[in-house]
Amino acid sequence: MYNPAMRIIYLKERDILFLFFISIIIIGTTLLFFPIAWQSDKEYTFVDSLFTAVSAVCVTGLSTVDIVGMTLFGKIVLLILIQVGGLGLITFSSMFLALPRKKLTLANTKIIQNYFTNEKIVDPKYIIKIVLRLTLTIELIGAFFLFFSFKKFDIPDPIFSSIFHSVSAFCNAGFSTIPGGLEIFRNQAFGSVTFMLLIVTGGMGFVVLQDIFDFICKRDVVLLLHTKIMLVSTLILIFSGCLLFYIFEFDNITFEGLTWSEKILPALFQSITTRTAGFNTINQGDMTMPSKAISLGLMLIGGGSGSTAGGIKVTTAFLILGVLVQGLNADKGLTVFKRKISSINLTKAGIFFGKAIIIVFMSILGILIAESFYGSKFTFMEITFESFSAIATVGLSLGITSDLSVISKLIIIFTMFAGRIGLFSLIIPVNEIKIDRIINYPEGEVLIG
Amino acid sequence: MYNPAMRIIYLKERDILFLFFISIIIIGTTLLFFPIAWQSDKEYTFVDSLFTAVSAVCVTGLSTVDIVGMTLFGKIVLLILIQVGGLGLITFSSMFLALPRKKLTLANTKIIQNYFTNEKIVDPKYIIKIVLRLTLTIELIGAFFLFFSFKKFDIPDPIFSSIFHSVSAFCNAGFSTIPGGLEIFRNQAFGSVTFMLLIVTGGMGFVVLQDIFDFICKRDVVLLLHTKIMLVSTLILIFSGCLLFYIFEFDNITFEGLTWSEKILPALFQSITTRTAGFNTINQGDMTMPSKAISLGLMLIGGGSGSTAGGIKVTTAFLILGVLVQGLNADKGLTVFKRKISSINLTKAGIFFGKAIIIVFMSILGILIAESFYGSKFTFMEITFESFSAIATVGLSLGITSDLSVISKLIIIFTMFAGRIGLFSLIIPVNEIKIDRIINYPEGEVLIG
Ligand SMILES: [K+]
Ligand SMILES: [K+]
Repeated sequence: MYNPAMRIIYLKERDILFLFFISIIIIGTTLLFFPIAWQSDKEYTFVDSLFTAVSAVCVTGLSTVDIVGMTLFGKIVLLILIQVGGLGLITFSSMFLALPRKKLTLANTKIIQNYFTNEKIVDPKYIIKIVLRLTLTIELIGAFFLFFSFKKFDIPDPIFSSIFHSVSAFCNAGFSTIPGGLEIFRNQAFGSVTFMLLIVTGGMGFVVLQDIFDFICKRDVVLLLHTKIMLVSTLILIFSGCLLFYIFEFDNITFEGLTWSEKILPALFQSITTRTAGFNTINQGDMTMPSKAISLGLMLIGGGSGSTAGGIKVTTAFLILGVLVQGLNADKGLTVFKRKISSINLTKAGIFFGKAIIIVFMSILGILIAESFYGSKFTFMEITFESFSAIATVGLSLGITSDLSVISKLIIIFTMFAGRIGLFSLIIPVNEIKIDRIINYPEGEVLIG
Repeated sequence: MYNPAMRIIYLKERDILFLFFISIIIIGTTLLFFPIAWQSDKEYTFVDSLFTAVSAVCVTGLSTVDIVGMTLFGKIVLLILIQVGGLGLITFSSMFLALPRKKLTLANTKIIQNYFTNEKIVDPKYIIKIVLRLTLTIELIGAFFLFFSFKKFDIPDPIFSSIFHSVSAFCNAGFSTIPGGLEIFRNQAFGSVTFMLLIVTGGMGFVVLQDIFDFICKRDVVLLLHTKIMLVSTLILIFSGCLLFYIFEFDNITFEGLTWSEKILPALFQSITTRTAGFNTINQGDMTMPSKAISLGLMLIGGGSGSTAGGIKVTTAFLILGVLVQGLNADKGLTVFKRKISSINLTKAGIFFGKAIIIVFMSILGILIAESFYGSKFTFMEITFESFSAIATVGLSLGITSDLSVISKLIIIFTMFAGRIGLFSLIIPVNEIKIDRIINYPEGEVLIG
C-alpha cells in the first residue's frame, strides 16, 4: 500500500544525505582556507580549498595544489574529510542497499513486481556498528604493514604517513602526502601489494565483505548473487586490465628499466588503481594512447556498490553487458547464476549508466568551452581523462588539474560531487513496494549504484 | 500465448535483414572493385572498395578515397547502393515499427503489459507502396530544385548531379560528387535550404511523415505521441545546435568573410547535417574544440526511428533525458504529453544507448591500438570523431579517413555496419506479446531505434 508518511520519511533521508555532505564540505573548505593548513610558501585560493575539500569528501584525490605543501594540521583535516566522506557514504549506502524491503522503483506502477527474496534482512544499527568496526580494523592492519615499507624508504613521519595512506587507500581516495606520490613503489612488491589489497577490499563494498565473512564463518549460508557477480567480475576486470596495460606499456617509458617479470607489478597496480583508487606508481601522462583509453573504460566502471569506490559500479556494467550479450532473449529475463534479474534492476542499471555518460559529456563540453577562452591549451584526451576521473572519483590525471581555469575547476568540483553524491542519491528508495510473497521463481537482487 | 512457429518466422525476418544487406554489400564491393568504376589515374585497394560499398549501403558517407575520382559507372553504382541501402532500411523499419502488435520484449515475462493502444494498424503492403512513392516523389522534387543551384555554379553533368545529391541528401548519405563538397553552398541560401529540407524530411522517419500527412488531410485524426515528440525534439535540437555553432564558430576561420547575419546559414546547416546527413559546408577539422564536442553529441543522437538517419535516435535520447529529469518519480511512469511511457519502452531506450556507447568505445579503443603500431599520428579527438561518425552513420570527418591503417579502416567498416544494421536489428520483434485489452490508462507508444 502507498503510504504518504513513508514517502516523507524517505525524502528526508535523501535530504539528510545532501545536507550531511554539503556540511562537511563547508567545514572542510573553511578549515583548509586557514593559512595554518598550508606551509607558508604555498599559494592557494579559495577555489583551491573548496576543490581539495570536495575532492577529499568525495574520495576523489584530484587536487589543484600539491598537498605535500600542507602542514600537519592540513593533512589531519584532509584525513578526517576522507574518512568521514568514505565512511559516511559506505554507511548510508549499506543501510539503503542492505535493507531488501526498500527498493527504488524507476518503472511505472503497473509493473511492480511480485517480490520473493532470499536476501538477508539486517538491522540498521548492526550495519553501522559492523561497518565502523570493519573499516577501522582493516585500516589499522593496513597501516601496520605500510609502516615497514615507509620506514624502509625513510618517509618522514612514518606513523602518521602510514595511517594516512592506509585510510586513503581503503577509502579509495588516492591522496598521497609523499613527494612524487607512490612512484617509489613501482617496483616494490610488498608496499605495492599492501596498497592493492587495501584498495580492492575498500572497493568491494560492505555487503560483499560481510557476505564473504558469513560464508566462511557460518553454516548453511550461500553467497548472495551480488557477491558472486562481484567476485567474478572483479577478478576478470583486474586481470584483463593488467594484461592490457602490460602489453601496451611494455616498451613504454613508464616501465623503463624493468625486466619482463618486474613489469607485471606496475601493470597490476595500474589495473587496480584505475577503478577508482587513483594512486599512481607510473606517470599517467606518459602512458600510451591505448592505455589511456583503457583507463577511461576502467575508471567509468569503478568498484562495488556500497563501497568507497566510485564509477557506475561493477554490477551495473555487468548487467548492461549481460543484456547486450543475451540480447533479444531478454524477454525471458536476464539469467545469471541460475537467477533471474528483474526488469526494474535492468532499468536502474541503464539509467545509472545514462546519467553518468550525460554528466561526463556535459563536464567535457563545459571544460572545452571554458578553456577555449584561454587558448584551448589542453588536448581532448587530457580533458576527457580529467572528467572521467572526476565523475568516477578516481583522482588520476594526465597532469592538467592545477593548470585548469577557475571555471573548469568549478566544473570538476561539480562533476566530482555529481558523480559521488548525485549518482548515489539515485539509489535511495522513494517509495515502499508492496511485497506479495507469492511463490514463484526466486529473484536474485543485484545492487546498482 | 507463446507460439514457437511465430518465433521461427520472426527469426527469419532478422536473418533476411542481415542477408539482404550483406548481399548488397558484396555486390557493391565487387562492382566498385572493377577498374571501370574508377578513373584510370586513381589508386584504390580492395579495402577501399569494401569501405565505399559499406559506407554507401549504410548511408554513412565516409570514404577512404575521393568519390570525385569515380567514373559515371561508379557513381551510378554508388547512387543505387545509397538508394537501396536507405530505402531498404526505411522499408524494413517502417514495417516492423508501424505494426503495433509486434513488440520487442526486453524485459522479463512477468512484466508483460496490459496493452491498450490507440496507434494505427497498417497493412505491410500499403506501407511498402507508400514508402516507395513518398521517397521517389520527395527525391524528384529535391532534384528539381537542386538543378537550378547546380546550373548556377556550372557543376558538370547537372541533371545527374542533382539526382545524385537529392538521393544522397534524402537518404542522409552525405556523399557528394562535387570537388570540395558542398563548401560552395556555405553562403548560398537557396541551395543550402534545399539540402536542409531534404535531410530533415528524410531523417524524420516514414511514420512521422505519414502521420503528419494524415493529420493534415484527414479528419478525426490526432498526432501520434511519437510524432509530437519527434517534432518538438527536432526543433529544439536544430535551433539549439545552430545557436551553439553560431557562438563557437563566430570568430573562427570556418565563418571567415561572412557578416553576422550570413553566419546563421552555415551554423544552421552544420546543426542539421551533423544529425546524420554528413554533408559539410564548412571544414570540420577547422572547427573549434567546443564545436567538435557538440558535434559528437548531435551525431550520437541522430535522427528519427524508421528513417534514413542513424544514431541512437531522437526519441531514444528524449526518453533517456526524460527519465533523468523526472528521475525518482519514475515509479509513476514517465509521463509525456499526458501519456504514460511503459517500462519496456524505457528499457529498450537504455539498451539501445548502452549498446551504442559500448560499440563506439570499442571502435575508438581498437583504432587507437591499431594506430599505435603506426606511430599514433592521430589525436584522440580525430579518432573519437571518426568513430562517432561511423556508428551514427554521419559521414563527417576531421579528415583522417584515407590516412587510417588498413585495420582501422576495417574497424570503421565494422562500426558502420554495427551502427546501422546491428543496432537496427535490436528492434525487430522476436516474440508476439499477449495483448489483454483491459481498459486502463492508455499508454502511448514511442518508437526506439
Ligand atoms: K579516488
Ligand atoms: K550520412
